Amino acid sequence: MPTSYFMPARILSGKGCVKEHASLLAGMGRHALIVTGRTSARANGALADTVAALEKENVSWSLFDRIEANPSIETIREAAALGRAQASDMVIGIGGGSPMDAAKAVAALLTNPLEGDALFAGFYPNPVPPIVCIPTTAGTGSEATPYAILTDHAMQTKRNMGGSELFPRIAFLDASYMMGLPWSTTLNTALDALSHAAEGFLAIRGTALSEPFAVTGLKQMIQVLRELAVLWKEGVPADEIPFVIRESALIGSMFGGITIAQTGTTLLHAMGYCLTYCRNIDHGLANALLMPAYFEFLEKKMPDRMKLLFGHLGFSSAEAFTSFLKTLFVMMEALPESDIDAYAAIAAKAKNMSNTPVPVSLTELSGMFAACRLPSG
Amino acid sequence: MPTSYFMPARILSGKGCVKEHASLLAGMGRHALIVTGRTSARANGALADTVAALEKENVSWSLFDRIEANPSIETIREAAALGRAQASDMVIGIGGGSPMDAAKAVAALLTNPLEGDALFAGFYPNPVPPIVCIPTTAGTGSEATPYAILTDHAMQTKRNMGGSELFPRIAFLDASYMMGLPWSTTLNTALDALSHAAEGFLAIRGTALSEPFAVTGLKQMIQVLRELAVLWKEGVPADEIPFVIRESALIGSMFGGITIAQTGTTLLHAMGYCLTYCRNIDHGLANALLMPAYFEFLEKKMPDRMKLLFGHLGFSSAEAFTSFLKTLFVMMEALPESDIDAYAAIAAKAKNMSNTPVPVSLTELSGMFAACRLPSG
Repeated sequence: MPTSYFMPARILSGKGCVKEHASLLAGMGRHALIVTGRTSARANGALADTVAALEKENVSWSLFDRIEANPSIETIREAAALGRAQASDMVIGIGGGSPMDAAKAVAALLTNPLEGDALFAGFYPNPVPPIVCIPTTAGTGSEATPYAILTDHAMQTKRNMGGSELFPRIAFLDASYMMGLPWSTTLNTALDALSHAAEGFLAIRGTALSEPFAVTGLKQMIQVLRELAVLWKEGVPADEIPFVIRESALIGSMFGGITIAQTGTTLLHAMGYCLTYCRNIDHGLANALLMPAYFEFLEKKMPDRMKLLFGHLGFSSAEAFTSFLKTLFVMMEALPESDIDAYAAIAAKAKNMSNTPVPVSLTELSGMFAACRLPSG
Repeated sequence: MPTSYFMPARILSGKGCVKEHASLLAGMGRHALIVTGRTSARANGALADTVAALEKENVSWSLFDRIEANPSIETIREAAALGRAQASDMVIGIGGGSPMDAAKAVAALLTNPLEGDALFAGFYPNPVPPIVCIPTTAGTGSEATPYAILTDHAMQTKRNMGGSELFPRIAFLDASYMMGLPWSTTLNTALDALSHAAEGFLAIRGTALSEPFAVTGLKQMIQVLRELAVLWKEGVPADEIPFVIRESALIGSMFGGITIAQTGTTLLHAMGYCLTYCRNIDHGLANALLMPAYFEFLEKKMPDRMKLLFGHLGFSSAEAFTSFLKTLFVMMEALPESDIDAYAAIAAKAKNMSNTPVPVSLTELSGMFAACRLPSG
């Protein structure tokens, strides 16, 4: 069966890499639209570095700083309208997955009139302008994927707008911007990155060309999580998490991104989207809370493959992995019984269902939601 | 220190992948120049598949089938002249490293007048037309690098013409084309791929972004070599080497290519170029014959790093690795003493010297050449 590998983004990493490589921005466009959230890019210095790099290279810019978590189609259209009004010919996304995904969607909309479901058809008649991503969390891996995950209120879930035209041209990985991240974001995003590597390892679409990236992501992220678990237990404040751990997480999450850029995600993400949409649970945390049930389910269905997965993570079984997770989160409250079947029905409709390595019945899906435990009321 | 990762080639793999993805060729140009050697691409079916794919998509084509091993600047210029005469706007290299590297150099020359040393300056004022690579050996990894290694008779060695514009747009990895490779080529190229992974692991330019690729290449190629060693010892004919081993070698060598695309090579390649140029020893074999001396030298200089390297390979020391190599080659004849200092002087001038992880004196270089043993008179 023919298989493929493609990840054309140029990755630049290290302290100060945005300023160091400012000249690369000059070749990409004349007016940049910077797409970010309300506060973090200002607080962590990424916005200032980007603006300084653009101004040094005489690239003019506009700012859209109202990307919310799990950006909606409406917000994306608003940002694209600003970009068109300013004749933007490149888009820079700064932040976690939400602003980076938004930057991709906005770039596509700058040159392509995509109405209704055409937004999710993955077909862009006109060339998409260059996209630059500057991650300021280590989880999504969006800087190395062609995906833009948007919230579709009509569908009551998150949907994937994608296409290889949406790969960033350049990604700048500077872990300095992560030094102020709180513990919750640090852990949730690390678990998101771990889920990408794990799901890429398990996905139907996984191949010999993608597996090395999955294994790299698995090993790097579990090492990061083990180090974080020690610091967390010791009560170390989040802003004292060492740069080397932050950087290792940033690189590990990029490998997770490269992985899912090839393989896509699986049922875990489909279920997670549901918890995020319906219960406003952070994306990485949603995946993490569903991991025990998902891994235990797969351990019964495909024990050999799961043994390999746990081997790369350094655990003997799903149970041992779950015990480790429980050192990071208290998982106690079940989902309301009345909602579970509805969640299962929504998750079953997601595209990533068909990429799950074993068939899953609606009853089994409900069973996984029923086994899920949330941290608190 | 800022570091980077870039490998924009789209990799397509699997039996029949050229025909399967013929439509991708249509979008790339109107007249393809196919660059290959005299015989192998005809014998292994790669040329016929390529021509069929082009004709299906109504892309016209010309053939330059006189690329020699270690292609000279003169040959490249001749092929480029043919391409210009035919108004070629894409170049397809089919074969081992020589035709693939030649395709890149020819593509650059199609649109850029590069005289004298400008050929090696890595600067291409005009856009380089799209390059497609179809490897028919598993060693060079050229399909995933921006390098074109040419023989410079004036400099009496091989030189690297490079630049990110020379990355192939697409690489087709179909191990079917390797089923007829003789044992010598199979082993020499596998050792070349191993040397890429090992040198990338050791190179000064190695980073956290390149190391996962190096480790993947190391593990995959040593596994291939161990499997080949068993078959070789059992006297299995080369054309009975299983497809799965061929394909694993092809993917492993691609990971070696991705590695050196980031890190470059080191002294081992510099020394190897010398043996190839001066004694006409096949490139992969030249590297393999110098490996014992190089690894033993580094084991003394940087024991911890070499222990990690041997750990990934599953050996306890350079000596154990050399013993394994000796199951594949008889190494007996020393180089003529009178030539050794001259070889050392040539190798010392190579660019890859400065990428070697420890400083090396001329005396030490001569010592490594003196320790090298050739298979036969």
